[in-house]
Amino acid sequence: MMIVMSDGATDRQVDDVIDRLHQAGVEAHLSRGEFKTLIGAIGDEDIISQIPLGAMPGVDSVIPIMRPYKLVSREFKPQGTVVSIGPVELGGEMFVVLGGPCAVESEEQLMASARAAKEMGVHILRGGAFKPRTSPYSFQGLGEDGLKLLAQAREETGLPVVTEVMDARQVELVSGYVDMLQVGARSMQNFFLLKEVGAQQKPVMLKRGPSSTVEELLMAAEYIVRGGNSNVVLCERGIRTFETATRNTLDLSAVPLVKHQSHLPIIVDPSHATGKRELIPALARGALAVGADGVMVEMHPDPKVALCDGPQSLDFGQFREMMADLKAAAPPLGRKL
Amino acid sequence: MMIVMSDGATDRQVDDVIDRLHQAGVEAHLSRGEFKTLIGAIGDEDIISQIPLGAMPGVDSVIPIMRPYKLVSREFKPQGTVVSIGPVELGGEMFVVLGGPCAVESEEQLMASARAAKEMGVHILRGGAFKPRTSPYSFQGLGEDGLKLLAQAREETGLPVVTEVMDARQVELVSGYVDMLQVGARSMQNFFLLKEVGAQQKPVMLKRGPSSTVEELLMAAEYIVRGGNSNVVLCERGIRTFETATRNTLDLSAVPLVKHQSHLPIIVDPSHATGKRELIPALARGALAVGADGVMVEMHPDPKVALCDGPQSLDFGQFREMMADLKAAAPPLGRKL
Amino acid sequence: MMIVMSDGATDRQVDDVIDRLHQAGVEAHLSRGEFKTLIGAIGDEDIISQIPLGAMPGVDSVIPIMRPYKLVSREFKPQGTVVSIGPVELGGEMFVVLGGPCAVESEEQLMASARAAKEMGVHILRGGAFKPRTSPYSFQGLGEDGLKLLAQAREETGLPVVTEVMDARQVELVSGYVDMLQVGARSMQNFFLLKEVGAQQKPVMLKRGPSSTVEELLMAAEYIVRGGNSNVVLCERGIRTFETATRNTLDLSAVPLVKHQSHLPIIVDPSHATGKRELIPALARGALAVGADGVMVEMHPDPKVALCDGPQSLDFGQFREMMADLKAAAPPLGRKL
Amino acid sequence: MMIVMSDGATDRQVDDVIDRLHQAGVEAHLSRGEFKTLIGAIGDEDIISQIPLGAMPGVDSVIPIMRPYKLVSREFKPQGTVVSIGPVELGGEMFVVLGGPCAVESEEQLMASARAAKEMGVHILRGGAFKPRTSPYSFQGLGEDGLKLLAQAREETGLPVVTEVMDARQVELVSGYVDMLQVGARSMQNFFLLKEVGAQQKPVMLKRGPSSTVEELLMAAEYIVRGGNSNVVLCERGIRTFETATRNTLDLSAVPLVKHQSHLPIIVDPSHATGKRELIPALARGALAVGADGVMVEMHPDPKVALCDGPQSLDFGQFREMMADLKAAAPPLGRKL
Repeated sequence: MMIVMSDGATDRQVDDVIDRLHQAGVEAHLSRGEFKTLIGAIGDEDIISQIPLGAMPGVDSVIPIMRPYKLVSREFKPQGTVVSIGPVELGGEMFVVLGGPCAVESEEQLMASARAAKEMGVHILRGGAFKPRTSPYSFQGLGEDGLKLLAQAREETGLPVVTEVMDARQVELVSGYVDMLQVGARSMQNFFLLKEVGAQQKPVMLKRGPSSTVEELLMAAEYIVRGGNSNVVLCERGIRTFETATRNTLDLSAVPLVKHQSHLPIIVDPSHATGKRELIPALARGALAVGADGVMVEMHPDPKVALCDGPQSLDFGQFREMMADLKAAAPPLGRKL
Repeated sequence: MMIVMSDGATDRQVDDVIDRLHQAGVEAHLSRGEFKTLIGAIGDEDIISQIPLGAMPGVDSVIPIMRPYKLVSREFKPQGTVVSIGPVELGGEMFVVLGGPCAVESEEQLMASARAAKEMGVHILRGGAFKPRTSPYSFQGLGEDGLKLLAQAREETGLPVVTEVMDARQVELVSGYVDMLQVGARSMQNFFLLKEVGAQQKPVMLKRGPSSTVEELLMAAEYIVRGGNSNVVLCERGIRTFETATRNTLDLSAVPLVKHQSHLPIIVDPSHATGKRELIPALARGALAVGADGVMVEMHPDPKVALCDGPQSLDFGQFREMMADLKAAAPPLGRKL
Repeated sequence: MMIVMSDGATDRQVDDVIDRLHQAGVEAHLSRGEFKTLIGAIGDEDIISQIPLGAMPGVDSVIPIMRPYKLVSREFKPQGTVVSIGPVELGGEMFVVLGGPCAVESEEQLMASARAAKEMGVHILRGGAFKPRTSPYSFQGLGEDGLKLLAQAREETGLPVVTEVMDARQVELVSGYVDMLQVGARSMQNFFLLKEVGAQQKPVMLKRGPSSTVEELLMAAEYIVRGGNSNVVLCERGIRTFETATRNTLDLSAVPLVKHQSHLPIIVDPSHATGKRELIPALARGALAVGADGVMVEMHPDPKVALCDGPQSLDFGQFREMMADLKAAAPPLGRKL
Repeated sequence: MMIVMSDGATDRQVDDVIDRLHQAGVEAHLSRGEFKTLIGAIGDEDIISQIPLGAMPGVDSVIPIMRPYKLVSREFKPQGTVVSIGPVELGGEMFVVLGGPCAVESEEQLMASARAAKEMGVHILRGGAFKPRTSPYSFQGLGEDGLKLLAQAREETGLPVVTEVMDARQVELVSGYVDMLQVGARSMQNFFLLKEVGAQQKPVMLKRGPSSTVEELLMAAEYIVRGGNSNVVLCERGIRTFETATRNTLDLSAVPLVKHQSHLPIIVDPSHATGKRELIPALARGALAVGADGVMVEMHPDPKVALCDGPQSLDFGQFREMMADLKAAAPPLGRKL
């Protein structure tokens, strides 16, 4: 922490800040210049951040100088983490493709998707059983029936499955059926849910909130890892900006940024990011090129009858074409597919 | 709904869209011009919005023309709603002031705040027992002990109390102690929590998410009202923008906008919006002037030792001054305080 | 400036940074802790900011600790500046109302507006002669003919007039006709234009860019004042955010923030901020309440035939009502109108 | 245009809107449903957009249904435009790399950069002679001396050169020295400058404003093309969002979006987008993968002494490595380098 004193701060106020730091067992380094007085507080950031320095008289501002997360940082663990989801390794050389419908709608729709996914070389099947919807009047998902269909699809195809868990009370139920739990973008800072998925061992895919910084995403991951579960995969899925031509603004810079700061794997979801089918294949290639560990893309046997997100779902032909593109582009980028 | 067809849409595609609408019992009005073909879909928006028109071949875009909420709209109920929180009426002539510490820290701290609040004419006491914190290493609140202290403060001062509920499992516990439940900004789209607070009768203060539009705020309120609880008070508390000089950007335009579109009362939280003590009194006056039904402002007996949000808490002297300002300014603005 | 060294920075790299500062005549304070090494650079920020410290090996980040503007800061000049625009003093006790049409369209339209403005007690007449328009196909203003009409309106009513100047080449022409030059939001960082209006003495109204921080607004004002013209009035007119219910998001927090940091007067433009007529009177009252020195509001004799911004223009009846509201609300807020 | 009438609109108000459209020679299609009344206005959008429909009594909202630009649209010209900059073709099969220092600082610095660029296979040399700087106290560029050095670098290396023009008065001067004029992000809506660069024939690189939508970027390009110069290259360089870990948020979705909507070529500037050297190579590969026609990347012989943007400049070794990566990745993506 760096404490910047106000221009008119008195010696007494400066001493009070230093005393307060010393009481907490923190070193204080005073830099007094002609224009400004600074106090560097160097010690355990956990302790320092508990002291309300910003509210002390004479303090102009308090500037953090260390990253607020630890367990998920690359300083803490220099080698990248590889998360195993069933037989699939995410975070290694393989560029992992997760595909499937936005929502599980029926046995027919899910099984058709699962078989197509398997045949195209998709690694993990996705499908929503509980759907977070802005409107109470929209389709809210099949619930446990959807989970059962996902388990059935896995049985038939051998593909591991991932689905969203929206509420702490569902964690046990959902983790009984699937191979990876998804914490959705709207739940990224549902701290009780984070603690609950941290207290079990199924891998967790944590999606970035549409108005969350990368630092906040890593802090949310820290909740899970600190709870005891280090099988966390991050997911960039677009942030909210003034641009309305796309549903969100996909922040591909977040991928190399996360790779520098954290050992956790990160994938990209171009479907929710753009909301536009015609942009998705290009952005899936972009995700591969910037160094993501995978992509999650929505598909549907017949997007025009989808109960959820039809306009952003690829049909099987489009998905197959995307897979071929990715396969061709991967080798010079150091990836297998 | 207005369906805009692509430039190259065929007659067959146009007919398919119209057929689809007719099948669903929806009127379709065709407008075919030299440059564009439009189809107006007029009927029950609930039904129309279930049809994935945007994914049909030949469709360029689908433009909603009706508001997606109903029960909370002013068309549905032209008179403003007044919510009773204990003896306090929010939404009427009174400009209601909610004050208290960010977090309940101790009996001494809370009781000092409660007595000061009572003496200054504050109407409702606030205080957090469960605290949503970005970092797992920050103070997370006293939990049920905090709730007990809030109940004790109400007993002594007669002030109704409000506190945040973060998880659906806590609703019953928390509503046993307090007079109003707060759904925090990070939980605005925690739909399971919305359903749970909608299934009981304690008034609910619903804070706008930092990246939520006013329409999404009203949709979240719709979840609660549709669940059976119409005692909802909205709260504008700042949205996330590129400006970093304030913690968030307080969107005071949201107040008259909500007043036009909804019958629900709305208050303003300038403390979380700005994060800067020196800006709060001016923005509390601003809230009064734009037509808000109240303000919620953080205070602390000694902000420099606060465990949470010290820099944005007023001390008792500053709070008293703000109250005097508001009292003086209210009458020509048609409000009592 | 505070220089934060990377975790792996070598002693040699630390020394290099210190040497570089010393060469430039800047004091360097080293704070070396268990976890982090910091170097405080204290001296003339002009000099320090010229040194590309962030690009030196071993440097993690460089954190500015002083505000980057000077002449416009309240530290530099503690008393508030009062700018005289003809007989009107802006920045004093008077809450100044600027009113008039978006664009000067015709003699009839402008003179009707000017007379109505005069009769209602408006202090300054506004009207655009050169119009910045997103589309090349929109009405671009009457140009010099518009300026002549503004001069004629001033002659008849005695009201000082303000109009926008869009290009450095127009400054001389425009300042020959009007009492105050407006630098529009899109031109806030047109540095050649800032230099040009700084090199003459007519007062300048500088509008905040829709994606500019308050700090950048003050830096733009610094360009003008440094050029020799200290008659600068700032104008908050909304910033661009994800919210689409209003044209922009009016940032009323910027008003008390500017008042703390700068001696320059600041007014508010609720017309461009919201784009919605029905929200403007409430936000004009809000501007008064948060401490703005005035408001600028668009009016039109017949908004439904306006060539520009009709939906956000008040008609004369609505404007008159707003004036009455402001007059009633001003006294307890310490303002005259 | 689609006109949505208010719920309480009278028949007379509906008729007035239709009459107004007919007077302007525009077809009006009435759709009157149980819940809503809509009027489709189909005709020349130039004419329709001049009618202030939104300000007419009884009108709730006016929804544009056609894109507001023409000459730059793919409907207008289905084949992609190839812009020739000296011997370089931008918009064809070649993935074009523009490289060079942020600012021209000295003959030595520029010539070293130019020679390195040539040797590495860079196609176009960039360098700023006039620099837009937020602070009046920062280095403002060498002006015409910088232009002369750019011309000298071209002469020696044969590389075409591009530099920014900030003011309409400079267009003639600058175009006398360089091969392509850059309109910077802050100038994207400097309409007088757009008209001036549209009135000459040197190619123009138009950078997206940090708070401009893709539609506004295309409208700005429309100003230039309509002025008579169709040699326009767009440049995505990041938009302003709440994320502060990067200088801006690079919006790579804009690339395939522009490719769908416009025939103009588009390149990406990852240097200004991120401000962080370590992210640039990954995002340059991302630009290639999403379909951009080129990248512009800053380099400097010795970034740690750069007068401008040192932290985001690659040194020659880093740049060379990036070139090798791009060369390897290009073929499966259908590009040459």
